[in-house]
Amino acid sequence: MASGPDLPIAVSLGDPAGIGPEVIAKCWDHRSEFGLPPFVMIGDPRAVESVWDGPIAPIDDPRDASDAFDIGLPVIQLLSQEADVPGHPSVAGAHCSLDSLELAVGLARSGSASAVVTGPVAKEQLYKIGFAHPGQTEFVAERCGVSSGNVAMMLAGPTLRTVPVTTHLALANVPSALSPGLIESRARATLRGLQRNFGIPEPRLAIAALNPHAGEGGALGREELDIIEPAIASLVAEGWRVTGPHPGDTMFHASARSMYDAALCMYHDQALIPIKALHFEDAVNITLGLPIVRTSPDHGTAFRIAGQDRADPRPMAAALRMAARCSAHRSDIA
Amino acid sequence: MASGPDLPIAVSLGDPAGIGPEVIAKCWDHRSEFGLPPFVMIGDPRAVESVWDGPIAPIDDPRDASDAFDIGLPVIQLLSQEADVPGHPSVAGAHCSLDSLELAVGLARSGSASAVVTGPVAKEQLYKIGFAHPGQTEFVAERCGVSSGNVAMMLAGPTLRTVPVTTHLALANVPSALSPGLIESRARATLRGLQRNFGIPEPRLAIAALNPHAGEGGALGREELDIIEPAIASLVAEGWRVTGPHPGDTMFHASARSMYDAALCMYHDQALIPIKALHFEDAVNITLGLPIVRTSPDHGTAFRIAGQDRADPRPMAAALRMAARCSAHRSDIA
Repeated sequence: MASGPDLPIAVSLGDPAGIGPEVIAKCWDHRSEFGLPPFVMIGDPRAVESVWDGPIAPIDDPRDASDAFDIGLPVIQLLSQEADVPGHPSVAGAHCSLDSLELAVGLARSGSASAVVTGPVAKEQLYKIGFAHPGQTEFVAERCGVSSGNVAMMLAGPTLRTVPVTTHLALANVPSALSPGLIESRARATLRGLQRNFGIPEPRLAIAALNPHAGEGGALGREELDIIEPAIASLVAEGWRVTGPHPGDTMFHASARSMYDAALCMYHDQALIPIKALHFEDAVNITLGLPIVRTSPDHGTAFRIAGQDRADPRPMAAALRMAARCSAHRSDIA
Repeated sequence: MASGPDLPIAVSLGDPAGIGPEVIAKCWDHRSEFGLPPFVMIGDPRAVESVWDGPIAPIDDPRDASDAFDIGLPVIQLLSQEADVPGHPSVAGAHCSLDSLELAVGLARSGSASAVVTGPVAKEQLYKIGFAHPGQTEFVAERCGVSSGNVAMMLAGPTLRTVPVTTHLALANVPSALSPGLIESRARATLRGLQRNFGIPEPRLAIAALNPHAGEGGALGREELDIIEPAIASLVAEGWRVTGPHPGDTMFHASARSMYDAALCMYHDQALIPIKALHFEDAVNITLGLPIVRTSPDHGTAFRIAGQDRADPRPMAAALRMAARCSAHRSDIA
């Protein structure tokens, strides 16, 4: 995988009517304070101009981003059919956000960008233009030629990393969606991702239980005995350092967190409640299992505050720093 | 309800072979540092003597506890049939722990103690002697003449209070156990408990969603639309300050926590993951809806470390302080 100190990070704009343009521009404003590497925004510069009056540095070639970064916010232009009003998403904006995502991924795939950081999109808008994926993660996986079953969504903060086995699923459907095979494939994507992206040669994975008190030997549910323990046994037999099933409530305090490099959780809220309780401002979403580095801030388009200079750029800054660190780890391996 | 500055807190020993005796004795050792009010332990003094060499002050009348507290650990004796070895629970110890709990509750009920703090018991031991309750909470409720449906288990830490609607239930059984009526009764017990025990005249309750993203309008589950929203509407119509359903993952960060006095959660881990991630050392379990104040440290018997001088007394100290504060609030009302 091509990457290097001279390659910028490609940042997709996200929905032009959301807070993506504002947080990207604010990251350029605070690039020294936040310790940010050079990056280039892919998208319509008018979306940034409508919410920010700093300098834009239009470029055509990502290799020019590092020099341009000293002058203004580097932007590779993708003009939307119409300029969006902040807070008012449109079909034209949805097209623009998808084109931006596609080009950003393409630049990383072809070795012209060191990583991709994706701005927040509005799925309900994307669905109107024929987007058929549950989210950006699955779209990026497909563009990279990877089955979405083999990628894992990690939420990473300074003292905790979590990965949900199931994601956007009604809670009632979680127990029947779990299988040893699914848990094992998410676990392997997580373990390999810790090696590749975080430079941890022998990663430790803590696997959560589904039921309270890890099921109390079957009295509070049998999924631990029938599904999770067999998955753990298989992973251990492969030589991975995997423990569990751990009761969800006792695995996220400070001394418990120090015992593992990532926690594999059974469902969305089990993974996202602790990470957001502890690291709301600096939790980063990183997709493991891809041939490229892809991160994103863990927030949405926040249309209701778009264009009001109220959006917090720290999550986007954390995503940029994490992307830089992960691509540096990959360069070390390559 | 009788209570006052001269009444001690009655502390049940819990299982004599667990860490209860050690953490109670250590609380007396550190009573000034921890800011603890006078308390009296109910149970077999030999259980304390086997793990601690400080002074014991045997008393018969709880009214003597305040004076005795300066001399040693006040103990109202309940001798077990045999002295337990730390880490090795027995049937005799189970009887002793149940007698201790019963007497502690009785003292509070009769106005001889200001509150009850319960030490950790071993349910599997209690079941051997005919105990038929899911836990101490339900036993205390019954002894107070309150239906267990009308009490609520609150976990309270310095910046967060949570209450689970369902508790010790397999996750697969949670969705079908939820009903508007159950959510409303837990919510009312919580709201009244915030008034009585915490002195908050107009408490604000945030009610969690069951499904990720609060179900996304039905796409990720219908429990929000069919069960939780109707319950919230009823509570609001009664004049309570109730909001929700809030997506579980975005309601526990610092600025979200500042918007409510307690969070009502749909299941065990949803309530316990955030409280233990944030407040592992000082989260207190408090039973709301009782005529007495009852708190407990939020940990178990920890038999594997009993008798090794390794148990952390801070959770028990937090339970004692919380019991004192809650009974003071009740005195203010009375």
